[in-house]
Amino acid sequence: MISSRLSKLSESLRTSGLEALALNAGPSLVYLTGLHFHLSERPVVALFTTDHEPVIILPELEMLKVSGMPVKAFPYGENPADWDGFFQQAVTFLKLDRKRIGVEPRQMRLLEFRHIKFGAPKADFPDASGVVSNLRVRKDADEVAAMRKAVKVAQSALEASIPLIQVGMTEKELASELVVQLLRGGSQSEMPFAPIVSGGPNSANPHASPSDRKIQPGDLLVVDWGAAVDGYISDLTRTFAVGQVEAEYRKIHQIVLEANEAGRAAGKPGTPCAAVDKASREVIEKAGYGVYFTHRTGHGIGMEGHEEPYMRSDNMELLEPGMAYTVEPGIYLPERNGVRIEDNVVITGTEAECLSDMPRELRVVGS
Amino acid sequence: MISSRLSKLSESLRTSGLEALALNAGPSLVYLTGLHFHLSERPVVALFTTDHEPVIILPELEMLKVSGMPVKAFPYGENPADWDGFFQQAVTFLKLDRKRIGVEPRQMRLLEFRHIKFGAPKADFPDASGVVSNLRVRKDADEVAAMRKAVKVAQSALEASIPLIQVGMTEKELASELVVQLLRGGSQSEMPFAPIVSGGPNSANPHASPSDRKIQPGDLLVVDWGAAVDGYISDLTRTFAVGQVEAEYRKIHQIVLEANEAGRAAGKPGTPCAAVDKASREVIEKAGYGVYFTHRTGHGIGMEGHEEPYMRSDNMELLEPGMAYTVEPGIYLPERNGVRIEDNVVITGTEAECLSDMPRELRVVGS
Repeated sequence: MISSRLSKLSESLRTSGLEALALNAGPSLVYLTGLHFHLSERPVVALFTTDHEPVIILPELEMLKVSGMPVKAFPYGENPADWDGFFQQAVTFLKLDRKRIGVEPRQMRLLEFRHIKFGAPKADFPDASGVVSNLRVRKDADEVAAMRKAVKVAQSALEASIPLIQVGMTEKELASELVVQLLRGGSQSEMPFAPIVSGGPNSANPHASPSDRKIQPGDLLVVDWGAAVDGYISDLTRTFAVGQVEAEYRKIHQIVLEANEAGRAAGKPGTPCAAVDKASREVIEKAGYGVYFTHRTGHGIGMEGHEEPYMRSDNMELLEPGMAYTVEPGIYLPERNGVRIEDNVVITGTEAECLSDMPRELRVVGS
Repeated sequence: MISSRLSKLSESLRTSGLEALALNAGPSLVYLTGLHFHLSERPVVALFTTDHEPVIILPELEMLKVSGMPVKAFPYGENPADWDGFFQQAVTFLKLDRKRIGVEPRQMRLLEFRHIKFGAPKADFPDASGVVSNLRVRKDADEVAAMRKAVKVAQSALEASIPLIQVGMTEKELASELVVQLLRGGSQSEMPFAPIVSGGPNSANPHASPSDRKIQPGDLLVVDWGAAVDGYISDLTRTFAVGQVEAEYRKIHQIVLEANEAGRAAGKPGTPCAAVDKASREVIEKAGYGVYFTHRTGHGIGMEGHEEPYMRSDNMELLEPGMAYTVEPGIYLPERNGVRIEDNVVITGTEAECLSDMPRELRVVGS
């Protein structure tokens, strides 16, 4: 249990008018309790209130994980028909029916939600994502140190993979080799996300999955990858040229590089997130490719690949010291090729410090 | 689009009295459409009805994935405040308000659910897990072939890792080496689950995560791992002895081995799932360790690590040809050591064929 985080949560619940917070397995639960569970068909829910130690409903076979911890556990057996009863006991124990129980809609499934609702049919379940992310969004020194390590592991792994790139190798093969290097380099075996390796027309899809397509001369090759160290992640992208590529591809790479620089330079304490997006987007728009930059400029990072704050044109939230996020502008020419260059920054007392320093220039690979 | 699967779904919706099925990103969506999306802060929902081509609400930046497919797409932009409107359009287009829209509570998050509910505030959302799993539960020849490959890749990877096991290496280090071997051996880079490597007291926790604990002489060492090939997975466990171990540990290993054999032998068409659990459990109970076998004997496998059918003492569902599942009895002596032996079987016309054949005897490692 991380007691200072729990006290801050109590305070936030009070000021938000919430009687409780319900979390299922996931990063916010890890952040508040250190407890790791996988999302599975067996629901795990922790209930945090302002006046009681946390309550957790979990499978009996997970009880070892909470032994000795200051939590009140309601362990259930293997028959799903009995689970509602255990949730009801827990909710009744905390007297939460008719109360306001905050939830994280991006993390909580109907599985957990319906069990909680069975126990508290008249409760309200407002979106408390903001309450939790507000606790998590300013990283402390230990968290930044872990992210720095995760960037280092990721960069070394890609550098070690570049000499392995060959024309004729598939995107999947390169993705696997990159994961091998990430693991050998010290990333946790639970990757933050599966690397994207996308060449040629696939690189024009920002969210491509590695395919059996073979890497070909003339391709742009997008690699979007990261490592996880001590529970914190990195999330980077570099775009390579496989041999000689069209002049327009070199041109859009240069534009994206400048957009990346502008985005990285735009962040500092007190600046709205929107300004980071604007800085990158203006470079691409002025070059005439605005319509091909189809996503926001970045997202927060920390325990998760995507978290607060989001670098979106309409997000007027102000940057604060400790906030960490990606800067990842891109240009995607449909059915042709695409470019993205992504770095990780953290806001210090005065500026946005870039944690990643791998060369961003268009490097030729596979020859 | 896999049109025979979609026709079967229409039929099932009709017989279940459902007007629609709503799926978010995940294996059932892949099964029905071939469409892969990651769960992220951007909701993706497909709506299947009996009388219309599927409708999908998704981010604009994912549109390439559905281009040319027989679906009606409602693509939305980057501002979450607008998303409700797109969901409402889609639901209105299909006239689904006040109707019965089936959902998968284990997969659908409140994020997607609340957007759908905004569009259809008076609809019912019954649990349709059974409808979908009933389509997925009987594997066809291609699916079994993929699982067979996934077993082979997993077994070869562990065999290649065993010589690397050394006293003093951490659980995390061994887990990483195993993942390296899985990837080199041809597993997809998106692993079915992070391997469990747990030694000594950690092995007494069935759901342990690899830790920094060093492997020590006298440990039992549980390795629970799998590969993913062509979208299908394997899920196996073997338990090793690090040098000489206590006599009781050798004894419980032998009991679990016999329980595993009994469980594998118990499955055949027409037999209830409960009989598989009973066969394994009786061996352990007769040996006096029943209280230390704290979980069900197995779960279905296919696209997911845990799916229907479940080998639970109260599950009277009958086994049918094509059903595939794990047999994984265990004995866990709290704060001491634990054993689990897990294999993957598929029901043929006459029996439960075991896909895995890696030796199950207690092997000594690390010396």
